Amino acid sequence: MPSSFPELSQAGLPPTVTISAVDEYHNVQEMRVADERALTIYLDSYEIVTLMTLGTQPELLTLGYLKNQGLIKDISEIRSVQVDWEVSAAAVTTYANRDDWQEKLGPRIVTTGCGQGTVFGNIMENLDELKLSPVRIRQSEIYALLKKLNAYNDVYKNAGAVHGCALCMGTEVLVFVEDVGRHNAVDAIAGRMWLEGIEGKDKIFYTTGRLTSEMVIKIAHMRIPTLLSRSGITQMGYELANELNVMMFSRAKGRHFLIYTGADNVEFDVDLSAKTR
Amino acid sequence: MPSSFPELSQAGLPPTVTISAVDEYHNVQEMRVADERALTIYLDSYEIVTLMTLGTQPELLTLGYLKNQGLIKDISEIRSVQVDWEVSAAAVTTYANRDDWQEKLGPRIVTTGCGQGTVFGNIMENLDELKLSPVRIRQSEIYALLKKLNAYNDVYKNAGAVHGCALCMGTEVLVFVEDVGRHNAVDAIAGRMWLEGIEGKDKIFYTTGRLTSEMVIKIAHMRIPTLLSRSGITQMGYELANELNVMMFSRAKGRHFLIYTGADNVEFDVDLSAKTR
Repeated sequence: MPSSFPELSQAGLPPTVTISAVDEYHNVQEMRVADERALTIYLDSYEIVTLMTLGTQPELLTLGYLKNQGLIKDISEIRSVQVDWEVSAAAVTTYANRDDWQEKLGPRIVTTGCGQGTVFGNIMENLDELKLSPVRIRQSEIYALLKKLNAYNDVYKNAGAVHGCALCMGTEVLVFVEDVGRHNAVDAIAGRMWLEGIEGKDKIFYTTGRLTSEMVIKIAHMRIPTLLSRSGITQMGYELANELNVMMFSRAKGRHFLIYTGADNVEFDVDLSAKTR
Repeated sequence: MPSSFPELSQAGLPPTVTISAVDEYHNVQEMRVADERALTIYLDSYEIVTLMTLGTQPELLTLGYLKNQGLIKDISEIRSVQVDWEVSAAAVTTYANRDDWQEKLGPRIVTTGCGQGTVFGNIMENLDELKLSPVRIRQSEIYALLKKLNAYNDVYKNAGAVHGCALCMGTEVLVFVEDVGRHNAVDAIAGRMWLEGIEGKDKIFYTTGRLTSEMVIKIAHMRIPTLLSRSGITQMGYELANELNVMMFSRAKGRHFLIYTGADNVEFDVDLSAKTR
């Protein structure tokens, strides 16, 4: 009986470095900059993909990537995830220790990625099975959560050039991850949920990034019914959210938001009449 | 002797649609939203990749993708690019009309993409050949260009959720493209340059997006020595810009900018002493 807790290395790295820049006054400034790194995932020594990442939680990113790409169904199949920055590699070992991953996965991983080279092709199948159960939420809860989220986004505040994602419940932030690509941040959260058996149905997913089709689909695969974004949406993200019963808040910042889907399940319990927007 | 001008369809679509949203006052607002679409590229009927795009210039995006991925070396090899939104497909026909693209390209396109599933693995080879010749530029030119660029970014202003990229020369904006992913916008510009034989060495590349390693590498492949971004940079983007002699301006907005590489080639000819920042 394999353990359901893979052995993980602890290879997280600091997310930023300091670099000198010259500003418009010809003054040198010391700036914090996101420390992007390449991480190549090997599944039983078969090369799967190279991700560009901050590398703060490479083991969870690797787990979440395998999960979200549907490469591994059950985490108990995974013996260990060992990240070694000397070779920029995340070595995933399964109990099965297959040597035929290429035959098994080859075509599936051709279109991996975000925006370019997308998971869309595979992931758009079986949408009906993805439908979520609508939940009710209060405007006051959204405001309380947004207020708490202000305390996060450390890397962004220091260095920019990253996206932040958070797994939330009620008005609490359970997990917050930043990475150079928003898909990596989502995957790291998915990895954490997978590892700890955290359910999505009672959670809220927050992202600083845009709600594109791929984001909506990924969150739906994580079974999270409520999506909160500081940015905008795309028409396809909207269509998918509609179809999958995902409640979608965009432009959520301070007291402002725009609800594109699921507005009927939002209780407007805050009196803004006295406030200016 | 094949023509050097492939036959292109004219399947460009409008970039936005109007969708109703409910704001924090429970008022319904009609919002412009980026109209994201899937476009699958077929090379002599071999499926290469599915891109998520606004679809405003799908033929140029397809050409630029093939060019930037190194899938086709010479544009004269391409007979036609026919985009059909009924089937969300861009059919690329070559004069050779190969039936062995999978054997030829298979491994190369496994890691295609941005951030997730990256071109990094292939594209980082032969960096020495990529080195660019430094150019000199005036602060006043940068300001004049930034001022002109304010007139663009239509989709972003209307709908958000997109990135804009521009090909510029001196203080003129030659080409401006917006798309849901910044890599698509870059590729559409690369396609235009490829189609019209536009050289990069005397150009400036502007992007609203972040200067990550992949962006710097792509622009270097386009032989453009000057990079101007409204956003931040990553440490790996910085290292590559250094190595490739790319002049890198970040946070360029209004009169502000931060020069990370190539500052010695910038002539500070604007007196800001009287101005507030």
